[in-house]
Amino acid sequence: MRLYSMRFCPFAQRTRLALAAKQIPNEVVNINLRSKPDWYFERNPLGKVPSLEFDGKVLYESLITADYLDEAYGDSRSLNSKDPFQKAQDRIMIELFVKVVGNFYKVLKEAKSGEESWKESFENLLSGLETFEKELTKRGSPFYGGEEPGMLDYMIWPWMERLPAFPIVTNGLVNNPCDTFPNLAKWWTSMEKDDAVQESFLTPEIHAKFVHGYFAGNPEYDMEVSKL
Amino acid sequence: MRLYSMRFCPFAQRTRLALAAKQIPNEVVNINLRSKPDWYFERNPLGKVPSLEFDGKVLYESLITADYLDEAYGDSRSLNSKDPFQKAQDRIMIELFVKVVGNFYKVLKEAKSGEESWKESFENLLSGLETFEKELTKRGSPFYGGEEPGMLDYMIWPWMERLPAFPIVTNGLVNNPCDTFPNLAKWWTSMEKDDAVQESFLTPEIHAKFVHGYFAGNPEYDMEVSKL
Repeated sequence: MRLYSMRFCPFAQRTRLALAAKQIPNEVVNINLRSKPDWYFERNPLGKVPSLEFDGKVLYESLITADYLDEAYGDSRSLNSKDPFQKAQDRIMIELFVKVVGNFYKVLKEAKSGEESWKESFENLLSGLETFEKELTKRGSPFYGGEEPGMLDYMIWPWMERLPAFPIVTNGLVNNPCDTFPNLAKWWTSMEKDDAVQESFLTPEIHAKFVHGYFAGNPEYDMEVSKL
Repeated sequence: MRLYSMRFCPFAQRTRLALAAKQIPNEVVNINLRSKPDWYFERNPLGKVPSLEFDGKVLYESLITADYLDEAYGDSRSLNSKDPFQKAQDRIMIELFVKVVGNFYKVLKEAKSGEESWKESFENLLSGLETFEKELTKRGSPFYGGEEPGMLDYMIWPWMERLPAFPIVTNGLVNNPCDTFPNLAKWWTSMEKDDAVQESFLTPEIHAKFVHGYFAGNPEYDMEVSKL
């Protein structure tokens, strides 16, 4: 099992989390997304990460790869709920998370370049997160998946992991959005300790450093490579 | 089982096709999308169709509802492949279909308003369809699902059903894109005869009439209501 990834790509991290949670042995090949090798397009015509390669077959798109791993490795811990309705509800929540994803780098970019519009983007991001705060409260469990993280927890985690980088990237202009939501803040602390999360976890400082380079047109894809 | 739908919405038709293929008894409530009732937002905060309501529960998003129906009604004909890899590949194809969906109304709108850009949008749409022509040829079966239509066939059908309306809507300016692809044309003819497809099938002339009204700012949601 080979994963084509990029170490700071939140979408690729989704697949890494699924592989880690299911304890599936794999090798990682990191792709330089600013200078993609020709052979990569033979594997994934879209040229994006993540892609999975195994037995001469290739799959891509983060959610599709995660669902595949969960179904194909049915003997190990199940990430999706076995109840079709619960599974569908979790999938709807993942869809609703686009409000967070879509405003994530927008807030940072606008705040860093001094555009006042960052406030509106931040409000939109908070409104997206509020849905998740309410849902977690409603479920009344430490994780969306219950007593341990499930598919929904892992699929939103890559962006959640990066939220504490907001004040660092923006020199204190933008708060860590998690501070607004007590249940999400508690969830964050529990998630950080999860074994699967730990396998790809990077500190807010490292995330902030990557974002700096990325916005400056010079993403440091190999930063801290020894840790990954 | 109640489906909130709009009779000319291709996304809602996806769920109707899944319900029909699985022979799940249901009632349909059509929503006036230009003047949505307040109570609809209590069911679906996005206010979009389709939504499914049953046992006091609600699900929405076309692919999520279709997957749910396929899993929850496991005793009837299975639409998704039981093979996780094949299922994932079909899901990738559905993702790639966004190139068709994204250019569909764009071509018609541009061609009708005399914008030359319709030609580029049409090329993009054809390039999207070419992927499907090649895949069908590779699979060597009458349907993507094999000897009978599967999830992939039904999830792309609503837009495919509307392709023959192109020359009618544009007064002959734009051809039926299916004419360019022999295998897709054959597939179209077989799909049209499918029992589940027949339950929601509308002729190219009716689709064209709806598109005319829609572009004129006056969608006729109740047109031909006796037939549905």
